[in-house]
Amino acid sequence: MSFYEQLKFDANGLIPAIVQDQKTGRVLMMAWMNRASLETTLQTGKTHFWSRSRQKFWMKGETSGHTQNVKDIAFDCDGDTLLIQVEQVGAACHEGYHSCFFRSVQEGPGHFKTTEERLVNPEQIYGKK
Amino acid sequence: MSFYEQLKFDANGLIPAIVQDQKTGRVLMMAWMNRASLETTLQTGKTHFWSRSRQKFWMKGETSGHTQNVKDIAFDCDGDTLLIQVEQVGAACHEGYHSCFFRSVQEGPGHFKTTEERLVNPEQIYGKK
Repeated sequence: MSFYEQLKFDANGLIPAIVQDQKTGRVLMMAWMNRASLETTLQTGKTHFWSRSRQKFWMKGETSGHTQNVKDIAFDCDGDTLLIQVEQVGAACHEGYHSCFFRSVQEGPGHFKTTEERLVNPEQIYGKK
Repeated sequence: MSFYEQLKFDANGLIPAIVQDQKTGRVLMMAWMNRASLETTLQTGKTHFWSRSRQKFWMKGETSGHTQNVKDIAFDCDGDTLLIQVEQVGAACHEGYHSCFFRSVQEGPGHFKTTEERLVNPEQIYGKK
């Protein structure tokens, strides 16, 4: 049986993909895939997603060079989430951090802290906003 | 500024929460939270979610005893995904595996393999289906 038959894409044809650094175990980001971006990810060995905000197919790192080399693709019991192990080139986060999850909730009502150092200045990659 | 102001719940008032085993780095599951389940998670130190299929508030482990003790809650750059570090009691997956991501895509068109041993027989926890 094909693993595609195990997957449940949502009403918009999308499935969330968690991306994890295979060596360190650090969760880097979560993004959305449609079937075409999953197929291209499998064919090329580099992560491709579907941007809901831009309604656009994109390869991770197409602008920044910070690509992700795919090492493993797992899917969960319900078939509605993917977990992709990668080797991350540079910073996964468009804000210049290794992981997009660089802020954690802290003690005290509603507080948070930054838990990572910035690796790169995003303006040097994407230009000034 | 409160971290709640950094979060973007979707049109249904939900945000996806990735749950990771803090000690091993294994990603265990992905489930959805609304604001009430996130607040209860923070107050109790145990993960609570919103079930989209059952339209019901639930505590992880309420039937199985396989609860999750929260160690850290991070959120991503876009504020639309949570990453929760936990100490997992027993099996995270309702099918009896440590992680819900117990199947990986294999070489060859559409094939997959099971990558974990079952820890418990789900029928002993949830009864026969």
